[in-house]
Amino acid sequence: MAIARIYLDWNATAPLLGVARDAVLEAMTLPGNPSSVHAEGRAARVVVEKARRHVASLLGAEPAHVTFTGSATEAANHVLSPVYRMGKAKIAVGRLYVSAIEHPAVRNGGRFAPEQVSEIPVTPQGLVDLNALADLLAAHDVTSGMPLVAIMLVNNETGLIQPIRDAAAIVKKHGGLLVVDAVQAAGRIPVSITDLGADFLIVSAHKLGGPKGVGALVSRGETLMPEPLVRGGGQEKGHRAGTENLAAIAGFGAAARAAGEDIEGRNAAIAALRDRAEEAMLSVAPETVIYGRRLARVANTSFFRLPGLKAETGQIAFDLEGVALSAGAACSSGKVGASHVLTAMGEDAAHGALRLSLGTGTTEADIDRFTAVFEKVAQRRKRAEQAA
Amino acid sequence: MAIARIYLDWNATAPLLGVARDAVLEAMTLPGNPSSVHAEGRAARVVVEKARRHVASLLGAEPAHVTFTGSATEAANHVLSPVYRMGKAKIAVGRLYVSAIEHPAVRNGGRFAPEQVSEIPVTPQGLVDLNALADLLAAHDVTSGMPLVAIMLVNNETGLIQPIRDAAAIVKKHGGLLVVDAVQAAGRIPVSITDLGADFLIVSAHKLGGPKGVGALVSRGETLMPEPLVRGGGQEKGHRAGTENLAAIAGFGAAARAAGEDIEGRNAAIAALRDRAEEAMLSVAPETVIYGRRLARVANTSFFRLPGLKAETGQIAFDLEGVALSAGAACSSGKVGASHVLTAMGEDAAHGALRLSLGTGTTEADIDRFTAVFEKVAQRRKRAEQAA
Repeated sequence: MAIARIYLDWNATAPLLGVARDAVLEAMTLPGNPSSVHAEGRAARVVVEKARRHVASLLGAEPAHVTFTGSATEAANHVLSPVYRMGKAKIAVGRLYVSAIEHPAVRNGGRFAPEQVSEIPVTPQGLVDLNALADLLAAHDVTSGMPLVAIMLVNNETGLIQPIRDAAAIVKKHGGLLVVDAVQAAGRIPVSITDLGADFLIVSAHKLGGPKGVGALVSRGETLMPEPLVRGGGQEKGHRAGTENLAAIAGFGAAARAAGEDIEGRNAAIAALRDRAEEAMLSVAPETVIYGRRLARVANTSFFRLPGLKAETGQIAFDLEGVALSAGAACSSGKVGASHVLTAMGEDAAHGALRLSLGTGTTEADIDRFTAVFEKVAQRRKRAEQAA
Repeated sequence: MAIARIYLDWNATAPLLGVARDAVLEAMTLPGNPSSVHAEGRAARVVVEKARRHVASLLGAEPAHVTFTGSATEAANHVLSPVYRMGKAKIAVGRLYVSAIEHPAVRNGGRFAPEQVSEIPVTPQGLVDLNALADLLAAHDVTSGMPLVAIMLVNNETGLIQPIRDAAAIVKKHGGLLVVDAVQAAGRIPVSITDLGADFLIVSAHKLGGPKGVGALVSRGETLMPEPLVRGGGQEKGHRAGTENLAAIAGFGAAARAAGEDIEGRNAAIAALRDRAEEAMLSVAPETVIYGRRLARVANTSFFRLPGLKAETGQIAFDLEGVALSAGAACSSGKVGASHVLTAMGEDAAHGALRLSLGTGTTEADIDRFTAVFEKVAQRRKRAEQAA
């Protein structure tokens, strides 16, 4: 008998919400291109603009400041540009500062040459080191152009909420721009671009219940914008050319709307399930290390390490038992690489850690199944150790 | 009583095929990220690779040589790169040569600086001028790097099939690379990257019955590839980072498969409808100019000019009568600009021309409705002229 699978890898991608699916379906019945001026085109345009309002609303932004992209990765490559524009004038960015725990989409530096990128270290706890940021920016060569700083709001592996407001104050003091990857934060904690003090946010639809293939770059204003990455037609006010991904944008809008509703209520339920899993792990194997357990984390994520169990081995063992969870981020095709987040925290990346990430569809029964498999895996490891 | 709308703007975007819709729906039920190593991730990966095979097969290419992108525009910006790579070695491209009738996505020159781009003129008939291409390449400064040439296979406004094989021979003679925008050709005429002698093809899903939001860059080999445009995770063999647009890619695959079946049979039916429209126009208003009528065109497109009727006015008149057609390309948000294609042909772009573009769903009744509206518009224009 086949066992039902348990999906506990919502940080890699969240299953599509029903409302998002419905919006995709409805948009797929429209024949027109949103850029066409005829009735069919205008009907498609209405769908795009409605979605733009929902995405803006989730992030405390103006709809006019939302640029849809093909992914959050594209948005990162767009905003991480050594050239900005104020109207027709070019503004130079002299150096990019990225935290050591950024997603590869940001960590790779977008359109900056590797020698133009500096890394901001993190504390052993996994939080961006604000003193180091201040030192880096104090040493910034302003004659080369503005500093551009990129720090994520929620880390995809640990789930730790980064001190963005404090970072923003430091960046402002040094006349810089702050880009915040909010991919793992949007819909999980309240996010407001204004409150955060960020200049740009990066978001992805599929991490919050929308379809894959669409993201957005959200700006606080529109006077200073990065040089476009994808050029051609005049779509997205000239910031991103190419026919709009109508159905996915519609799904993104519907998901953003749903994700913004009752975040606290959802979090209470999800945190209870996550805590249940963590308590069970500690009870079965007290030597389990849970990263950031006493720090501000998103409710759905648990990043843990069972000494002696290599993450890759653990991930495969859980998979064989029908439980999908992750060893590091799902960002490079089929490859389980060493976690740069653990490395940045000074941990043993070769040993690795496992990530449990929950969502609205997760049930107590799922957690109990996870716990049962964890127990099995932990006992097997103990027997192997005793035999050795 | 509301009149049913007639959609005759398939070159702007084609309504979604049923098989593509089904594939999108099915893919949306999968919870996983194609880059995850667990069973859910692997199931998603299978869908992406199946679609890759269908897209490759439509274009006579190897599946391994298909890189999915977020749009054809992104694929154009990707391939129009001044830097190529052979393994880790960088290869410089000295200059980009684009035909004067390319889509803005290509005409804007991708990642080339404006001063690195030369325009290849077209003949008054609207075909790329091969003598001019040969002259341009003979004068190319090889010390600056290879020449890169971009010529579309089928023009989106006139529907004219460009002499790619001959262009390819000229480009090869001068040691250059040839990029062919096959967006309006794929699924409308048989396309084989090898037969064409192209190094790269650009295609879009939504022009051939797939969803919006996905395109592909197809290469003849994989030794020489453009510097990636979107960097981050290792997806698409490192050529294009970002979580794959799973549902749209699935839809693209299904549409590509359907588009490759019985192209000739479909074309015979569509050409008969298009010819019926053109004969009716010439019979009602013999002064109608139909561009490229005696040249090799795709079966579904008619680009025409009714002297005295400005294209923008005509487009609105048709729209009000329930018929969606186009005045120029639908590539810039809500704007009807002067056609650069007409300008390149030495025609009066301010007057403009109208584009009728048909598809598999077009019926005789649609064409008769179009003809009736055309008659009305032509008579109104005649009365206005007589009154003036």
